[in-house]
Amino acid sequence: MIKRRDFLKTTALTTTLAVGLPQIVSAAIPETATSRLKLSTDEIILFQGDSITDAGRKKANTDFSTMDNLGYGYALHAGATLLNNQPSKNLHIYNKGISGNKVYQLAERWDSDCLDLNPSLLSILIGVNDYWHKHSGKYDGTVKVYENDLTALLQRTIKKLSNVKLVIGEPFAVKGVKAVDDSWYPEFDEYRASAKKIAKEFNAIFVPYQAVFDEALKSAPGTYWTKDGVHPSLAGAKLMAEAWLKATKLG
Amino acid sequence: MIKRRDFLKTTALTTTLAVGLPQIVSAAIPETATSRLKLSTDEIILFQGDSITDAGRKKANTDFSTMDNLGYGYALHAGATLLNNQPSKNLHIYNKGISGNKVYQLAERWDSDCLDLNPSLLSILIGVNDYWHKHSGKYDGTVKVYENDLTALLQRTIKKLSNVKLVIGEPFAVKGVKAVDDSWYPEFDEYRASAKKIAKEFNAIFVPYQAVFDEALKSAPGTYWTKDGVHPSLAGAKLMAEAWLKATKLG
Repeated sequence: MIKRRDFLKTTALTTTLAVGLPQIVSAAIPETATSRLKLSTDEIILFQGDSITDAGRKKANTDFSTMDNLGYGYALHAGATLLNNQPSKNLHIYNKGISGNKVYQLAERWDSDCLDLNPSLLSILIGVNDYWHKHSGKYDGTVKVYENDLTALLQRTIKKLSNVKLVIGEPFAVKGVKAVDDSWYPEFDEYRASAKKIAKEFNAIFVPYQAVFDEALKSAPGTYWTKDGVHPSLAGAKLMAEAWLKATKLG
Repeated sequence: MIKRRDFLKTTALTTTLAVGLPQIVSAAIPETATSRLKLSTDEIILFQGDSITDAGRKKANTDFSTMDNLGYGYALHAGATLLNNQPSKNLHIYNKGISGNKVYQLAERWDSDCLDLNPSLLSILIGVNDYWHKHSGKYDGTVKVYENDLTALLQRTIKKLSNVKLVIGEPFAVKGVKAVDDSWYPEFDEYRASAKKIAKEFNAIFVPYQAVFDEALKSAPGTYWTKDGVHPSLAGAKLMAEAWLKATKLG
C-alpha cells in the first residue's frame, strides 16, 4: 500500500499534475482490471438511496444535472466531476434518494423513481436504515429481509432495464461517532457483507465505502468525515464521490 | 497545447490514475514556476465576492467548512477538494459572497465579513456587477471606479492582514448566452484587464476564469457552463473550482 502511495506522490511531483490525488481512496480501493465504463451522449445516470444520497435535494425539481436536483452529497460531487470531465456527453444525471428509506421503500416508488426514468447507469446506496431502524426498534426487518428485498429489487430492475449498468454502494458507519456505538456490531457488518454479495451476484460495480472511511480515519478523526457516524460531512461526501469515481473508473 | 494534453492522456493511461484530469483547465492555465501555497493547521480561508461566490449559501449559518456555509458554487467545490486532500489540516473555510455586490459593497461590509475573520488566504472574485449594473443603467461606476475601489480595498486588507495570501479571480462572461451580448464588448474586457493588473500589483495569484470558460466552449456550448452568461451551472462551478485549484496549486 505504502509503495503505491509513494509512487503516486512521485508521479505527481515529476509531472506536476496539479489535481487532487485521492490518496485515501487509492489506498482503500485497489486497482482492478475492469475497463472504464463507457458513457454515451445524453446517457441517463441515476443515483438512488436514502438520506445519504438525498442530501437535501429539492424534490420539487424534476430537472437533471443541476445543483438543486443533486443535493449536497456524494451525488453532487460525483455528478459535478462527470459533467466536467465529459462535457461533450451532455449527461443527464438524476438523484432520487429519499431520507429514511429502506429497501422496501425504494421498491414502493421504483416505477416512477427508477424504471420510468430508464437509466443506463443506476447507482444504489441503501441499507444503513434497514439496520439502524431495526436497532432503534422502529423496524422489524432482518439482514435476511434486506438481502431478499434488495435482490428482488434488482431482479425487477434488470427485467425491465436489461442493459443497465449497476453500481452498488456498501452501507457504512463510523464507529464511535454519535449514533454509532459498539452495539451496532457485529450485526451491522452483515448488511455490508450482504450488499457486497449481491453486487457480485448481479455483476455490479461495488463501492467499498466502509474501507474508504476506515482509511480516512488515519488522516482525520471520525467527526471530520461525519457528524453523526452515518451522514457524511462535506469532506465525507467528497470522499464518497471520489470512491464512486474510482470504483467506476469514471473519475 | 495539444501536445501537453496528449501527454496528460498518456500519463493517465500508463499510471491508471483514476482522477478527473482537468484538461480544459490545463489547456487554459499554463504551468507556472510558483510554488504550491503551504497551508497550516486550522488555517482560515475566505471566499469573497458576489452571487457567483454566494451561490445560495445559507447566510444565517456562521459555521465554516460546511455545505450550508459554502453554497452551491465554486467555493463549495474548491473547498471540498481542500478539505479532502489535506484532511489533517482541519481547514476553516468560509464563504461570505453576497449576490449583487460590487466592490464598494464589499468595502461596506469588509470589517465584519473579512478583516474580523482574520483569513490567512483570501480569495476575491468581483467585478461583473460593477460592469453589468452600469450597462443596465443601475449604477454609474466606471472601470476606473472599479480599479480604484478594488485597489483601496486591497490596501486596506494588507494593512490589517499583513501576511494574507491573496487570490484574485478574473471577472468573466460567456458571450452569446442570454444576458451577455455584443453590447458588453469591448468595455467589459477592461474590467478583466483591470483585475489582472491589480492582481500583479498586489502579488496575488490570478485565476484567469475567462480563458478557462473560453477553452470550455470547445467541448460544450455556453449554456452547458452557464444558464445566463454570468452565473455558472454545476459544470461551470466545478470548472471554476478546478481553475482555482490549478492556479493556487492546491488541487
